[in-house]
Amino acid sequence: MTTTRKQMRLGAFFQETGHHIAGWRHPEAEAAGGLDIRHQIELARTAERGKFDLLFVADSFAVRGANNIPALSRMSRAVSLEPLTLLSALAVATERIGLIGTATTTYSEPYTLARQFASLDHISGGRAGWNLVTSNNESEALNFSRGTHAPHAERYERAAEFLEVVRGLWDSWDDDAFPRDKDTSLFFDPEKLHVLGHRGKHFTVRGPLNVARPPQGWPVQVQAGSSDAGRSLAARSAEVVFTAQQTLEEARGFYADLKGRTAAAGRSPDDMKIMPGFFPVIGRTESEARENYERLQSLVDPVVGLATLATTLGEADLSGLPLDGPLPDLPEANGPKSRRQLVIDLARRENLSIRDLYLRVVGARGHRTVVGTPAQIADELEAWFTGGGADGFNIMAPHLPRGLADFVDLVIPELQRRGLFRTEYEGRTLREHLGLRRPEPVRRAAAATAAE
Amino acid sequence: MTTTRKQMRLGAFFQETGHHIAGWRHPEAEAAGGLDIRHQIELARTAERGKFDLLFVADSFAVRGANNIPALSRMSRAVSLEPLTLLSALAVATERIGLIGTATTTYSEPYTLARQFASLDHISGGRAGWNLVTSNNESEALNFSRGTHAPHAERYERAAEFLEVVRGLWDSWDDDAFPRDKDTSLFFDPEKLHVLGHRGKHFTVRGPLNVARPPQGWPVQVQAGSSDAGRSLAARSAEVVFTAQQTLEEARGFYADLKGRTAAAGRSPDDMKIMPGFFPVIGRTESEARENYERLQSLVDPVVGLATLATTLGEADLSGLPLDGPLPDLPEANGPKSRRQLVIDLARRENLSIRDLYLRVVGARGHRTVVGTPAQIADELEAWFTGGGADGFNIMAPHLPRGLADFVDLVIPELQRRGLFRTEYEGRTLREHLGLRRPEPVRRAAAATAAE
Repeated sequence: MTTTRKQMRLGAFFQETGHHIAGWRHPEAEAAGGLDIRHQIELARTAERGKFDLLFVADSFAVRGANNIPALSRMSRAVSLEPLTLLSALAVATERIGLIGTATTTYSEPYTLARQFASLDHISGGRAGWNLVTSNNESEALNFSRGTHAPHAERYERAAEFLEVVRGLWDSWDDDAFPRDKDTSLFFDPEKLHVLGHRGKHFTVRGPLNVARPPQGWPVQVQAGSSDAGRSLAARSAEVVFTAQQTLEEARGFYADLKGRTAAAGRSPDDMKIMPGFFPVIGRTESEARENYERLQSLVDPVVGLATLATTLGEADLSGLPLDGPLPDLPEANGPKSRRQLVIDLARRENLSIRDLYLRVVGARGHRTVVGTPAQIADELEAWFTGGGADGFNIMAPHLPRGLADFVDLVIPELQRRGLFRTEYEGRTLREHLGLRRPEPVRRAAAATAAE
Repeated sequence: MTTTRKQMRLGAFFQETGHHIAGWRHPEAEAAGGLDIRHQIELARTAERGKFDLLFVADSFAVRGANNIPALSRMSRAVSLEPLTLLSALAVATERIGLIGTATTTYSEPYTLARQFASLDHISGGRAGWNLVTSNNESEALNFSRGTHAPHAERYERAAEFLEVVRGLWDSWDDDAFPRDKDTSLFFDPEKLHVLGHRGKHFTVRGPLNVARPPQGWPVQVQAGSSDAGRSLAARSAEVVFTAQQTLEEARGFYADLKGRTAAAGRSPDDMKIMPGFFPVIGRTESEARENYERLQSLVDPVVGLATLATTLGEADLSGLPLDGPLPDLPEANGPKSRRQLVIDLARRENLSIRDLYLRVVGARGHRTVVGTPAQIADELEAWFTGGGADGFNIMAPHLPRGLADFVDLVIPELQRRGLFRTEYEGRTLREHLGLRRPEPVRRAAAATAAE
């Protein structure tokens, strides 16, 4: 064991009651946990006990899957706490772990988001991160007085300008702008206040922000888009990238591509940490792990399984088909073709029944799944980490709280023995955990100090 | 003493470092407290120790007063934590006290605000309240890609529709919509999910909300607008009204008007609690109270005093005038006339110097100020409460944390001795503290259950 060996980053990906589609039905799962702040605090403290770099809360701006209420009503994802309020509550219930929340650039205002993330960074003492997303489904548009969502390219153009404005607002005040000198009566130094004066295609924002510069300078920037436009924006600005990769080979390709784009954008590849999702089903023995997995799979409601499969197959009509019969030939469909064909090929190649097939597509939503002992799981993480596929992983517990506790109690000690993960936090801020530099303020051409 | 006597409501009005304009310079003030979550938690716990009904966080969506940087730099109000993130953090650091935050209907989306306040209500176990405001100054418009703010009437029209949408979204789920039955696989009951389908002039919002119905049904609705449009909206929907009244006579007039409008709108006057702001400067003796007040006044920086006076006088130019000389005749000015004339009349009547005059207008920003012993302050609160001027008060400590702690340690015991204030919390939610009914869901004409 060596303590100077390069170490991996770990994120705890929180999702209501766990990432397995039937995780909420597991006997040990806290089915009401998505709205229960005590449960969320317990999870955060468990992750912090494991020395995780960060916890991550995904988000959507609508009830997802509301087009199929019978299936949705058998899943746990319809409701949850809102990320910024949840993370602020977790900030004061923890001390070290990073707190990453998702927020959309499509239906938000940069001034409001800049304030809320800056405030979270102050409340948490420098542990905030923002997962920047664009909104791409119609159900979200319908909640924000739009009939349809904007085209892909325009959404990313808006996102890039949004981020530019937010960072500009975070730089409104120099780090040492506030002497708060009772004797001289100077609360802030006017020379250290900068008015942004942004005028762009999508936004006109004067500033300054009414929050002091965040402890981290800028909260850590996270992205997860894998489209060309998404990768391009990530290369220019993302500091953490979440992604879904099925094999080490795919992961290596994504990693090399994105690090290359980052270098081409004039940044050091080390300034971006790539963290694929990882779905571990853990047992003390191989057979225990297998049993745990089979138990979860046995809890998948056929209504949910069929709906998920139908969506994967481009909203195919599977109604009335026997679950234990084969997948029939399907008419052509709209929507993404490649994933659809992969699933059809899988059914044909392995001669799977419809039930077998939906059990293969539910679960980890395209993320790497490993069922095994702590050593086997650590082997896989190590192979990806040392093999050029990842800087770390976003751990997706199948059910909560047990799935996360098992990872902390069984897998993390194994990673620590191998020198692959920290045994204590060395830093205080999320940037320090991740080894990211604290950004200097950027003085924009349009900006003026208030004292001028 | 009687325990069945009608009791007053008390709010702790948080504002950065206190409400006196020079409060941050007081030797005991925590000048950095506005951004310090530990300080904010201490304040919240102090208020909870005093059995306050609620704490209240005001807000603005721009740095206020940025047109006069020399004055602004000598005040503590330029930066603060953002209300929703702050209140979520305070929610897990307290157990009983209500948590009221300000948010604007002018530059927000109803879906986002409905989510954040619903989430805060879940996190706090039913202690959230929303102070609905419209944004009325140009510096806010300039931060939200608007050149100018909308006209007054249109802002209130939008606010009314905004509130209707938010309440509709809060009613998306019946209170018992979530059986989360692991055996039958039913997480929610489709018949208890309601799709809003709102189509109005300002908003089109389909719903449903992706947060379960808040513990209070709807977080408590607060307003502070005193214009005719503001009072009219308050009469229809507000459950708490904050206001600034200088004399009991004025307070009685406002109280009678608003309760009358509330009855005319078909609501019980008891469904709305009117709570004027109250600025107490406390001493164990009268002379100690007077000393405390004089000390605060002596800390008012002339730059700040002059700027505040100039604003009150309609942006009058007072530069170069001797502070100890009289107020000269002023040219006509734009803006509110009545307050301007009141101040000019005061200067003439009492033959005040410019310094005397600004010391009269700084401080409590138009709220009732009482300098006195705990008994004298309790006398005044009792007179307003029993005299038809108030259902309770929003307490504005001059400096923090001491000003709030003195009120809790000295004034509240006096109110309790008189039977005018609770000695223990009887309820758990903010509605219970205030004696407000929990609203039943409103089933709107356009809404449909998802099961239909």
